[in-house]
Amino acid sequence: MTQYKIAVLVGSLRIESFNQQLATALTKMAPTDFTLTPIKIDDLPLYNQDHDSRQADPVTRMKREVKGSHGLLFATPEYNRSIPGVLKNAIDHGSRPYGDSAWGGKPAGIVGVSVGAAGTAMAQQHLRNILAYLDVTVLGQPEVFLHERPGFFDPKGDLAPDSKVFLQSWMDRFAGWVRQHAS
Amino acid sequence: MTQYKIAVLVGSLRIESFNQQLATALTKMAPTDFTLTPIKIDDLPLYNQDHDSRQADPVTRMKREVKGSHGLLFATPEYNRSIPGVLKNAIDHGSRPYGDSAWGGKPAGIVGVSVGAAGTAMAQQHLRNILAYLDVTVLGQPEVFLHERPGFFDPKGDLAPDSKVFLQSWMDRFAGWVRQHAS
Repeated sequence: MTQYKIAVLVGSLRIESFNQQLATALTKMAPTDFTLTPIKIDDLPLYNQDHDSRQADPVTRMKREVKGSHGLLFATPEYNRSIPGVLKNAIDHGSRPYGDSAWGGKPAGIVGVSVGAAGTAMAQQHLRNILAYLDVTVLGQPEVFLHERPGFFDPKGDLAPDSKVFLQSWMDRFAGWVRQHAS
Repeated sequence: MTQYKIAVLVGSLRIESFNQQLATALTKMAPTDFTLTPIKIDDLPLYNQDHDSRQADPVTRMKREVKGSHGLLFATPEYNRSIPGVLKNAIDHGSRPYGDSAWGGKPAGIVGVSVGAAGTAMAQQHLRNILAYLDVTVLGQPEVFLHERPGFFDPKGDLAPDSKVFLQSWMDRFAGWVRQHAS
Protein backbone atom coordinates (compact mmCIF):
# COMPACT_ATOMS: atom_id res chain seq x y z
CA MET A 1 0.00 0.00 0.00
CA THR A 2 1.30 3.46 -0.91
CA GLN A 3 2.19 5.66 2.02
CA TYR A 4 1.17 9.13 0.84
CA LYS A 5 3.53 11.94 1.79
CA ILE A 6 1.94 15.37 2.13
CA ALA A 7 4.03 18.54 2.23
CA VAL A 8 2.37 21.03 4.59
CA LEU A 9 2.94 24.74 3.96
CA VAL A 10 1.80 27.24 6.58
CA GLY A 11 1.68 30.93 5.64
CA SER A 12 2.25 32.37 9.10
CA LEU A 13 5.56 32.31 10.98
CA ARG A 14 3.95 33.31 14.29
CA ILE A 15 4.64 30.67 16.92
CA GLU A 16 1.06 30.49 18.14
CA SER A 17 -0.35 30.89 14.64
CA PHE A 18 -3.95 29.70 14.32
CA ASN A 19 -3.16 28.26 10.91
CA GLN A 20 -0.20 26.38 12.33
CA GLN A 21 -2.49 24.97 15.01
CA LEU A 22 -5.03 24.10 12.33
CA ALA A 23 -2.37 22.27 10.30
CA THR A 24 -1.30 20.36 13.41
CA ALA A 25 -4.91 19.42 14.17
CA LEU A 26 -5.41 18.17 10.60
CA THR A 27 -2.22 16.14 10.79
CA LYS A 28 -3.81 14.14 13.61
CA MET A 29 -6.90 13.49 11.47
CA ALA A 30 -5.03 12.02 8.51
CA PRO A 31 -5.71 8.39 7.52
CA THR A 32 -3.04 5.84 8.40
CA ASP A 33 -1.72 5.73 4.84
CA PHE A 34 -0.93 9.47 4.99
CA THR A 35 2.08 11.23 6.50
CA LEU A 36 1.87 15.01 6.77
CA THR A 37 5.18 16.83 7.15
CA PRO A 38 5.64 20.58 7.75
CA ILE A 39 7.88 22.30 5.20
CA LYS A 40 10.16 24.97 6.61
CA ILE A 41 9.88 28.30 4.76
CA ASP A 42 11.12 30.80 7.34
CA ASP A 43 14.77 30.36 6.33
CA LEU A 44 14.27 31.15 2.63
CA PRO A 45 15.89 34.30 1.28
CA LEU A 46 13.81 36.90 -0.54
CA TYR A 47 13.46 35.60 -4.10
CA ASN A 48 15.85 37.15 -6.62
CA GLN A 49 15.84 35.88 -10.20
CA ASP A 50 19.56 36.61 -10.46
CA HIS A 51 20.13 33.62 -8.16
CA ASP A 52 18.13 31.10 -10.23
CA SER A 53 21.26 29.28 -11.37
CA ARG A 54 22.59 28.89 -7.83
CA GLN A 55 19.61 28.53 -5.50
CA ALA A 56 20.37 28.81 -1.79
CA ASP A 57 20.47 25.64 0.32
CA PRO A 58 17.09 26.27 2.01
CA VAL A 59 15.52 26.65 -1.45
CA THR A 60 16.93 23.39 -2.82
CA ARG A 61 15.91 21.64 0.41
CA MET A 62 12.34 22.94 0.19
CA LYS A 63 12.08 22.01 -3.49
CA ARG A 64 13.41 18.50 -2.79
CA GLU A 65 10.83 18.00 -0.04
CA VAL A 66 8.00 19.26 -2.23
CA LYS A 67 9.08 17.18 -5.22
CA GLY A 68 9.27 14.09 -2.98
CA SER A 69 5.68 14.55 -1.80
CA HIS A 70 2.48 13.08 -3.27
CA GLY A 71 0.43 16.14 -2.42
CA LEU A 72 0.31 19.56 -0.78
CA LEU A 73 -1.64 21.04 2.09
CA PHE A 74 -1.70 24.84 2.36
CA ALA A 75 -2.85 26.43 5.62
CA THR A 76 -2.91 30.13 4.99
CA PRO A 77 -3.88 33.18 6.97
CA GLU A 78 -5.06 36.31 5.22
CA TYR A 79 -2.79 39.33 5.22
CA ASN A 80 -4.28 42.39 3.55
CA ARG A 81 -6.82 40.40 1.50
CA SER A 82 -4.22 38.07 0.00
CA ILE A 83 -1.79 35.39 1.07
CA PRO A 84 1.20 36.40 3.18
CA GLY A 85 4.27 37.56 1.28
CA VAL A 86 6.14 34.87 3.20
CA LEU A 87 4.05 32.12 1.57
CA LYS A 88 4.19 33.72 -1.89
CA ASN A 89 7.96 33.99 -1.56
CA ALA A 90 8.14 30.23 -0.92
CA ILE A 91 5.87 29.54 -3.89
CA ASP A 92 7.99 31.80 -6.12
CA HIS A 93 11.19 30.00 -5.09
CA GLY A 94 9.61 26.59 -5.69
CA SER A 95 8.51 27.59 -9.18
CA ARG A 96 11.98 28.50 -10.37
CA PRO A 97 14.12 28.32 -12.41
CA TYR A 98 11.90 28.16 -15.48
CA GLY A 99 11.29 24.51 -16.35
CA ASP A 100 12.15 23.18 -12.89
CA SER A 101 9.07 23.95 -10.81
CA ALA A 102 8.53 21.74 -7.77
CA TRP A 103 4.76 22.30 -7.81
CA GLY A 104 3.49 21.08 -11.17
CA GLY A 105 0.94 18.27 -11.15
CA LYS A 106 0.66 17.91 -7.38
CA PRO A 107 -2.81 17.48 -5.88
CA ALA A 108 -3.44 20.03 -3.15
CA GLY A 109 -5.86 21.22 -0.54
CA ILE A 110 -6.26 24.68 0.96
CA VAL A 111 -7.51 25.50 4.45
CA GLY A 112 -7.48 28.71 6.42
CA VAL A 113 -8.66 30.36 9.57
CA SER A 114 -8.86 34.11 10.11
CA VAL A 115 -10.52 36.51 12.50
CA GLY A 116 -13.12 37.27 9.83
CA ALA A 117 -14.38 34.49 7.55
CA ALA A 118 -14.24 36.80 4.48
CA GLY A 119 -10.52 37.34 4.96
CA THR A 120 -9.36 33.79 4.49
CA ALA A 121 -11.79 33.37 1.58
CA MET A 122 -10.21 36.31 -0.29
CA ALA A 123 -6.70 35.08 0.44
CA GLN A 124 -7.59 31.60 -0.74
CA GLN A 125 -8.96 32.97 -4.03
CA HIS A 126 -5.59 34.57 -4.72
CA LEU A 127 -3.86 31.33 -3.80
CA ARG A 128 -6.12 29.40 -6.21
CA ASN A 129 -5.23 31.80 -9.03
CA ILE A 130 -1.54 31.24 -8.34
CA LEU A 131 -1.76 27.45 -7.99
CA ALA A 132 -3.85 27.10 -11.16
CA TYR A 133 -1.04 28.74 -13.11
CA LEU A 134 1.44 26.37 -11.46
CA ASP A 135 -0.61 23.37 -12.64
CA VAL A 136 -1.43 22.30 -9.09
CA THR A 137 -4.68 20.30 -8.89
CA VAL A 138 -6.57 21.93 -6.04
CA LEU A 139 -9.55 20.30 -4.32
CA GLY A 140 -12.61 22.51 -4.90
CA GLN A 141 -15.09 21.47 -2.18
CA PRO A 142 -15.64 21.67 0.67
CA GLU A 143 -14.12 25.11 1.08
CA VAL A 144 -12.50 25.67 4.48
CA PHE A 145 -13.12 29.29 5.48
CA LEU A 146 -12.81 29.12 9.24
CA HIS A 147 -13.63 31.95 11.56
CA GLU A 148 -11.37 32.15 14.59
CA ARG A 149 -13.38 32.89 17.70
CA PRO A 150 -13.00 32.19 21.43
CA GLY A 151 -13.15 28.43 21.98
CA PHE A 152 -12.14 27.55 18.43
CA PHE A 153 -9.09 25.87 19.92
CA ASP A 154 -9.11 24.59 23.48
CA PRO A 155 -6.05 25.21 25.70
CA LYS A 156 -4.48 21.96 24.43
CA GLY A 157 -4.82 23.12 20.80
CA ASP A 158 -7.71 20.77 20.09
CA LEU A 159 -10.59 21.94 17.93
CA ALA A 160 -14.14 22.50 19.11
CA PRO A 161 -16.31 19.40 18.40
CA ASP A 162 -18.29 20.90 15.48
CA SER A 163 -15.10 22.07 13.75
CA LYS A 164 -13.56 18.66 14.33
CA VAL A 165 -16.42 16.87 12.56
CA PHE A 166 -16.26 19.26 9.60
CA LEU A 167 -12.49 19.05 9.28
CA GLN A 168 -12.49 15.26 9.54
CA SER A 169 -14.89 15.14 6.59
CA TRP A 170 -12.61 17.57 4.74
CA MET A 171 -9.56 15.44 5.49
CA ASP A 172 -11.31 12.30 4.23
CA ARG A 173 -12.23 14.10 1.01
CA PHE A 174 -8.70 15.51 0.66
CA ALA A 175 -7.16 12.06 1.18
CA GLY A 176 -9.37 10.66 -1.58
CA TRP A 177 -8.37 13.55 -3.83
CA VAL A 178 -4.69 12.83 -3.29
CA ARG A 179 -5.11 9.08 -3.86
CA GLN A 180 -6.95 9.85 -7.09
CA HIS A 181 -4.56 12.48 -8.47
CA ALA A 182 -1.12 11.62 -7.09
CA SER A 183 1.32 10.43 -9.70
CA MET B 1 4.90 75.19 -4.21
CA THR B 2 4.69 71.71 -2.73
CA GLN B 3 7.44 69.38 -3.78
CA TYR B 4 5.70 66.01 -4.04
CA LYS B 5 7.69 63.07 -2.74
CA ILE B 6 6.85 59.73 -4.33
CA ALA B 7 7.98 56.44 -2.79
CA VAL B 8 8.79 53.98 -5.59
CA LEU B 9 8.40 50.27 -4.86
CA VAL B 10 9.73 47.76 -7.38
CA GLY B 11 8.68 44.12 -7.05
CA SER B 12 11.76 42.56 -8.63
CA LEU B 13 15.19 42.38 -7.02
CA ARG B 14 16.90 41.36 -10.28
CA ILE B 15 19.59 43.88 -11.18
CA GLU B 16 18.50 44.22 -14.80
CA SER B 17 14.82 44.01 -13.92
CA PHE B 18 12.56 45.42 -16.62
CA ASN B 19 10.31 46.89 -13.96
CA GLN B 20 13.28 48.57 -12.32
CA GLN B 21 14.23 50.03 -15.70
CA LEU B 22 10.62 51.12 -16.18
CA ALA B 23 10.62 52.85 -12.79
CA THR B 24 13.87 54.60 -13.67
CA ALA B 25 12.47 55.72 -17.03
CA LEU B 26 9.33 57.09 -15.31
CA THR B 27 11.46 58.94 -12.79
CA LYS B 28 12.93 60.95 -15.67
CA MET B 29 9.44 61.84 -16.91
CA ALA B 30 8.20 63.28 -13.63
CA PRO B 31 7.20 66.96 -13.49
CA THR B 32 9.62 69.33 -11.76
CA ASP B 33 7.48 69.47 -8.61
CA PHE B 34 7.86 65.70 -8.16
CA THR B 35 10.73 63.73 -6.64
CA LEU B 36 10.61 59.95 -7.09
CA THR B 37 12.73 57.94 -4.66
CA PRO B 38 13.28 54.17 -4.74
CA ILE B 39 12.41 52.40 -1.49
CA LYS B 40 14.72 49.56 -0.54
CA ILE B 41 12.86 46.32 0.21
CA ASP B 42 15.54 43.67 -0.34
CA ASP B 43 16.85 43.93 3.22
CA LEU B 44 13.52 43.29 4.93
CA PRO B 45 13.18 40.08 6.96
CA LEU B 46 10.34 37.68 6.24
CA TYR B 47 7.32 39.09 8.05
CA ASN B 48 6.55 37.47 11.41
CA GLN B 49 3.71 38.84 13.51
CA ASP B 50 5.59 37.90 16.67
CA HIS B 51 7.97 40.80 15.91
CA ASP B 52 5.28 43.48 15.55
CA SER B 53 6.27 45.16 18.81
CA ARG B 54 9.94 45.35 17.83
CA GLN B 55 10.12 45.84 14.08
CA ALA B 56 13.57 45.40 12.54
CA ASP B 57 15.53 48.50 11.48
CA PRO B 58 14.91 48.02 7.73
CA VAL B 59 11.17 47.82 8.46
CA THR B 60 11.05 51.03 10.50
CA ARG B 61 13.19 52.74 7.84
CA MET B 62 10.85 51.66 5.03
CA LYS B 63 7.78 52.71 6.99
CA ARG B 64 9.33 56.11 7.76
CA GLU B 65 10.08 56.68 4.06
CA VAL B 66 6.59 55.64 3.01
CA LYS B 67 4.91 57.74 5.69
CA GLY B 68 7.02 60.74 4.62
CA SER B 69 5.86 60.45 1.01
CA HIS B 70 2.91 62.14 -0.70
CA GLY B 71 2.24 59.17 -2.95
CA LEU B 72 3.31 55.72 -4.09
CA LEU B 73 4.44 54.27 -7.39
CA PHE B 74 4.40 50.48 -7.70
CA ALA B 75 6.29 48.86 -10.59
CA THR B 76 5.55 45.19 -10.36
CA PRO B 77 6.43 42.14 -12.38
CA GLU B 78 4.13 39.15 -12.43
CA TYR B 79 5.28 36.00 -10.67
CA ASN B 80 2.87 33.08 -11.01
CA ARG B 81 -0.15 35.26 -11.81
CA SER B 82 0.28 37.48 -8.76
CA ILE B 83 2.71 39.99 -7.33
CA PRO B 84 6.11 38.76 -6.15
CA GLY B 85 6.28 37.47 -2.60
CA VAL B 86 9.05 40.01 -2.11
CA LEU B 87 6.68 42.92 -2.78
CA LYS B 88 3.85 41.42 -0.71
CA ASN B 89 6.29 40.93 2.15
CA ALA B 90 7.13 44.65 2.03
CA ILE B 91 3.43 45.55 1.93
CA ASP B 92 2.71 43.24 4.89
CA HIS B 93 5.50 44.83 6.93
CA GLY B 94 4.30 48.35 6.11
CA SER B 95 0.76 47.49 7.21
CA ARG B 96 1.75 46.40 10.70
CA PRO B 97 1.36 46.55 13.65
CA TYR B 98 -2.42 46.94 13.63
CA GLY B 99 -3.27 50.63 13.73
CA ASP B 100 0.11 51.81 12.46
CA SER B 101 -0.04 51.14 8.73
CA ALA B 102 2.25 53.29 6.58
CA TRP B 103 0.01 52.95 3.52
CA GLY B 104 -3.40 54.34 4.48
CA GLY B 105 -4.71 57.28 2.47
CA LYS B 106 -1.76 57.55 0.06
CA PRO B 107 -2.54 58.11 -3.61
CA ALA B 108 -0.82 55.52 -5.78
CA GLY B 109 -0.16 54.40 -9.31
CA ILE B 110 0.64 50.93 -10.60
CA VAL B 111 2.71 50.07 -13.65
CA GLY B 112 4.14 46.82 -14.86
CA VAL B 113 5.92 45.15 -17.70
CA SER B 114 6.02 41.40 -18.28
CA VAL B 115 6.87 39.00 -21.09
CA GLY B 116 3.16 38.48 -21.69
CA ALA B 117 0.73 41.39 -21.30
CA ALA B 118 -1.80 39.17 -19.48
CA GLY B 119 0.70 38.41 -16.74
CA THR B 120 1.20 41.91 -15.44
CA ALA B 121 -2.57 42.54 -15.70
CA MET B 122 -3.34 39.60 -13.43
CA ALA B 123 -0.63 40.59 -10.96
CA GLN B 124 -1.92 44.16 -10.89
CA GLN B 125 -5.46 42.97 -10.13
CA HIS B 126 -4.17 41.19 -7.04
CA LEU B 127 -2.23 44.31 -6.08
CA ARG B 128 -5.38 46.43 -6.46
CA ASN B 129 -7.31 44.05 -4.16
CA ILE B 130 -4.58 44.40 -1.55
CA LEU B 131 -4.21 48.18 -1.83
CA ALA B 132 -7.97 48.73 -1.67
CA TYR B 133 -8.03 47.00 1.69
CA LEU B 134 -5.11 49.17 2.83
CA ASP B 135 -7.10 52.32 1.94
CA VAL B 136 -4.63 53.33 -0.78
CA THR B 137 -6.23 55.50 -3.47
CA VAL B 138 -5.08 53.90 -6.72
CA LEU B 139 -5.33 55.64 -10.09
CA GLY B 140 -7.68 53.63 -12.30
CA GLN B 141 -6.85 54.74 -15.86
CA PRO B 142 -4.86 54.46 -17.96
CA GLU B 143 -3.84 50.95 -17.07
CA VAL B 144 -0.19 50.19 -17.74
CA PHE B 145 0.06 46.59 -18.93
CA LEU B 146 3.32 46.62 -20.86
CA HIS B 147 4.56 43.77 -22.96
CA GLU B 148 8.32 43.35 -22.86
CA ARG B 149 9.64 42.64 -26.33
CA PRO B 150 12.93 43.22 -28.16
CA GLY B 151 13.51 46.94 -28.49
CA PHE B 152 11.25 47.87 -25.59
CA PHE B 153 14.33 49.33 -23.93
CA ASP B 154 17.29 50.49 -25.97
CA PRO B 155 20.83 49.63 -24.77
CA LYS B 156 20.88 52.82 -22.69
CA GLY B 157 17.68 51.80 -20.89
CA ASP B 158 15.57 54.32 -22.78
CA LEU B 159 12.09 53.40 -23.89
CA ALA B 160 10.96 53.00 -27.48
CA PRO B 161 9.28 56.22 -28.73
CA ASP B 162 5.70 54.91 -28.70
CA SER B 163 6.06 53.64 -25.13
CA LYS B 164 7.62 56.95 -24.14
CA VAL B 165 4.62 58.93 -25.37
CA PHE B 166 2.18 56.64 -23.60
CA LEU B 167 4.11 56.64 -20.34
CA GLN B 168 4.54 60.42 -20.38
CA SER B 169 0.76 60.76 -20.62
CA TRP B 170 0.42 58.26 -17.77
CA MET B 171 2.93 60.19 -15.64
CA ASP B 172 1.07 63.45 -16.25
CA ARG B 173 -2.18 61.82 -15.19
CA PHE B 174 -0.51 60.22 -12.14
CA ALA B 175 1.00 63.55 -11.09
CA GLY B 176 -2.43 65.17 -11.26
CA TRP B 177 -3.86 62.30 -9.22
CA VAL B 178 -1.25 62.79 -6.50
CA ARG B 179 -1.74 66.57 -6.43
CA GLN B 180 -5.49 65.99 -6.05
CA HIS B 181 -5.36 63.28 -3.38
CA ALA B 182 -2.20 63.90 -1.36
CA SER B 183 -2.85 65.00 2.20
